[in-house]
Amino acid sequence: MLTPEQRDRFDVVLVSPRNPLNIGAVARAMANFSFSRLTVVAPFEPHWREARSAVGAPELLKNARETGTLAEAVAQCTFVAGTGTRTHRQPDQPVLLLPDAAPILADRLANGGRAALVFGPEKHGLTRDDLSYCHMLIEIPTDPRQPSMNLGQAVAVCLYELARPAPPGHHPDDTSASSPSRQASSATSESLDRLAGLIEEAMIAAGYSPRAMQPANRHDLRVLLRRLAPSALDTRRMMGLFRRIVHRLQHPRRSTPSPR
Amino acid sequence: MLTPEQRDRFDVVLVSPRNPLNIGAVARAMANFSFSRLTVVAPFEPHWREARSAVGAPELLKNARETGTLAEAVAQCTFVAGTGTRTHRQPDQPVLLLPDAAPILADRLANGGRAALVFGPEKHGLTRDDLSYCHMLIEIPTDPRQPSMNLGQAVAVCLYELARPAPPGHHPDDTSASSPSRQASSATSESLDRLAGLIEEAMIAAGYSPRAMQPANRHDLRVLLRRLAPSALDTRRMMGLFRRIVHRLQHPRRSTPSPR
Repeated sequence: MLTPEQRDRFDVVLVSPRNPLNIGAVARAMANFSFSRLTVVAPFEPHWREARSAVGAPELLKNARETGTLAEAVAQCTFVAGTGTRTHRQPDQPVLLLPDAAPILADRLANGGRAALVFGPEKHGLTRDDLSYCHMLIEIPTDPRQPSMNLGQAVAVCLYELARPAPPGHHPDDTSASSPSRQASSATSESLDRLAGLIEEAMIAAGYSPRAMQPANRHDLRVLLRRLAPSALDTRRMMGLFRRIVHRLQHPRRSTPSPR
Repeated sequence: MLTPEQRDRFDVVLVSPRNPLNIGAVARAMANFSFSRLTVVAPFEPHWREARSAVGAPELLKNARETGTLAEAVAQCTFVAGTGTRTHRQPDQPVLLLPDAAPILADRLANGGRAALVFGPEKHGLTRDDLSYCHMLIEIPTDPRQPSMNLGQAVAVCLYELARPAPPGHHPDDTSASSPSRQASSATSESLDRLAGLIEEAMIAAGYSPRAMQPANRHDLRVLLRRLAPSALDTRRMMGLFRRIVHRLQHPRRSTPSPR
């Protein structure tokens, strides 16, 4: 994951983009992932800075740099990564999948200097000549049957990966987030048993639990409530409902609400 | 990382998308990352299937499903994840960052069943009502100053993460231990809705749900059932119990067991 300071030393470079809407979409994705330095090389359409697709990022587009050549665009960079797909035949540079390339880019930036990530034109991607400015070629792992990504989407995916927090395996605590009751205080075993008792009463009052089945039902209910892991508040609510159900089943004649 | 077989049990669901170009871009990203099942809920523009932005994915768009409601779209799903940003105030569901959520989705799919990833309309995202169909809310870690992503880019980033090869040293099994539904087949969204309907009937029959509170209770119940994540068997059992309770509350004079 690149630090904010590293992102300030990181350029997104678009070579000869054809559609201004794509340039705007790139600017939007950059703002989403806290990147700010965009260079557009030899754009096809002169009025690209007005692209309305740059939602939330008009300043970024206004401050973007325009150069005539890729050489000029990456002149100050100490590390340049090109992007492409498996369609590239025998590139001269090492080819890395995006998840593996991200830590290398971060590592290069940790040593100071500037880095650039270069994207080719919509139709055919970077040429062999473009690639000759690159230290590394990054491939997004796409389906071989449909490898070609939309430019704005490809940039979004790359910047997401570069901004991505470390994978969950490195932070064992993160897995606790999958616990459904993480944000709520858990019910105590005692209150689960009280709830189970009320549900059992309701089952009996409703004629739903034949005597012979009661021990097995009680067991299943206990197991079920632990598995569902309701919060303390859930448990109180369910107790309220079942208390009312039991009362109504036992006093069927009353039609006005009875006290709990 | 989802296996090809798991991707076949995974739906991308777009709720009320406004711009057909975005729908096409979603289809393109799905093809890039080997997903094929798209559902469009109540689209704004009737001719969305012709979106030219679905480069390389016209078949996917042609075979997409259209439904009138989100409930219908996710009816057969056993796990539903909504997407959104930090702008959501206090959601009822657990909120996970995308890198942490991906292994959980994979884990749920490993148990069989179907999963869905739901995206809201371009302008405002998923509503609170939409979210009540979700077991989990996934947040793409974006810049708080510019959190709102383009729909096609957001889908591309999510599917990239779900298709992303696991980083070395990460053991996906570690997180699966926390899955409550690991050993049992999960309930479908439709059956949870049926159970919620029965519980609501019981609440009303027991005089426990004043008319003015019924919409709020219905919402809370939907959220609660997703959070508890009962298995298909749990759900059937609870339906049996509540069916009986409702019957008994509505026919209080019978004292012999009545047929189910």
